[in-house]
Amino acid sequence: MPRSVDPDARRAAIADAVERIAAREGFAAVTVRAVATHLGASTSAVTHYVRSRDELIGLAVERVVTARREQVEAAVAGLPPGPALRALLEWVVAGPGEAAHRFWLAMVTGAQEDAVLRAELDGFNAWWDGVVGRLVAGAPEAAVLADAVDVVVDGLVVAGFEGVAPWPPQRRRAVIDAVLGPLLGDL
Amino acid sequence: MPRSVDPDARRAAIADAVERIAAREGFAAVTVRAVATHLGASTSAVTHYVRSRDELIGLAVERVVTARREQVEAAVAGLPPGPALRALLEWVVAGPGEAAHRFWLAMVTGAQEDAVLRAELDGFNAWWDGVVGRLVAGAPEAAVLADAVDVVVDGLVVAGFEGVAPWPPQRRRAVIDAVLGPLLGDL
Repeated sequence: MPRSVDPDARRAAIADAVERIAAREGFAAVTVRAVATHLGASTSAVTHYVRSRDELIGLAVERVVTARREQVEAAVAGLPPGPALRALLEWVVAGPGEAAHRFWLAMVTGAQEDAVLRAELDGFNAWWDGVVGRLVAGAPEAAVLADAVDVVVDGLVVAGFEGVAPWPPQRRRAVIDAVLGPLLGDL
Repeated sequence: MPRSVDPDARRAAIADAVERIAAREGFAAVTVRAVATHLGASTSAVTHYVRSRDELIGLAVERVVTARREQVEAAVAGLPPGPALRALLEWVVAGPGEAAHRFWLAMVTGAQEDAVLRAELDGFNAWWDGVVGRLVAGAPEAAVLADAVDVVVDGLVVAGFEGVAPWPPQRRRAVIDAVLGPLLGDL
C-alpha cells in the first residue's frame, strides 16, 4: 500500500464495502475477496487492515451498531417516556433508510450462522431492551408493550421491502398510530 | 441417473435442499453446485432435473408459495372476517415454524437481486393483499388495518430470530391481542 493512504479512511472504505455487500446479498457473500473486488483492490490490500473474515465483519458491524446506538440515544434524549417512544418509532420510519434496514435484516438473519454477528446483535439487543424497558416501565402491561414496540419496529423494517417500492413515511406512521397509539397513551 | 430413481422424489429432494440452504445462508448461497453438495450428488444429477439456477430457485419457491397459499386458505375457510383474521395470525404464530419463516425472510431480502424471487413474491403478495383486503373491508379504516396486519405478521416473523431462542407462541399472541385486538373488535 502507498504510504500516503490514510489508514482510517481505508478502514472506513472497507467497512462501507462490507455494508453494501451484506445489504445486497447477505453476510454469506461477505468475504475478503468480495470486499477487495468491490474496492478494486488486491486481497492483500484488505488483509493489511483486517486479518480475517471475522475481523472484517466485526469492523463493519461494530461501526453500524455504535452509530445506531448514538442515533437512538440522540432521538430519545431528554424526552418523557411516551414522546420518547414516539421519537424512537419516528427514527425507525424516517432515520436510517432502506440500505441500513437491509443491512440490519442481513445481520439478524446472518446471526444464526455467524458468531461475530450473534455477539454484536446480542450486545445491541441487551442495550435496546434496556432503553425500551425503561421507557415502558410505567405502562400497565410493560412487558407486552415492549414486545409490541419490537414487533412493530421489525415489521416496519420488513414491510418496506415487500413491494417494489418502499412504503412512504406517512403510511408507516398511520400503522404506528393505529396499533401503538392507544398503548402509548397510557404512558 | 439410475432409472429406478423416482423423478418426483428427486425434484422434491432438490427443492428441500434449496429451502435448507436459503433458510440458513440466503439465496446468494443457492447454486447448482451447493445443492449437489448438499445432496451428495454430482452437479449433472441436479441439472438433469433443473437446467439453470433460475429453474432451481423457481422449483423450490413455487412449491413453498403454493403450500403457503393453501395453508392460509385452509386457516380462514368458512370464517367471518374478524375470526378469519385471528385465524390467519394464529397460523403465523403456530403454523409454519422457524425454518419456514427464515426461508420467507430470505425470499423477501433476496427479491432485490433476483428476478425469479421478485416475480414469485409479487404474485404471492397480490394474492395475500386480496385475502386480507376482503377480510378488513368492513373496518372503519380498512387500508390502515390491512397495513397493520402486514406489519404485525412481518414483525412476529423477525422477532423470532432476534434472541437466541424464538419467542414462545403465548408471547406472540399477547402482542397480537395488545396491538390488533381493539382493531379486530370493529369487524
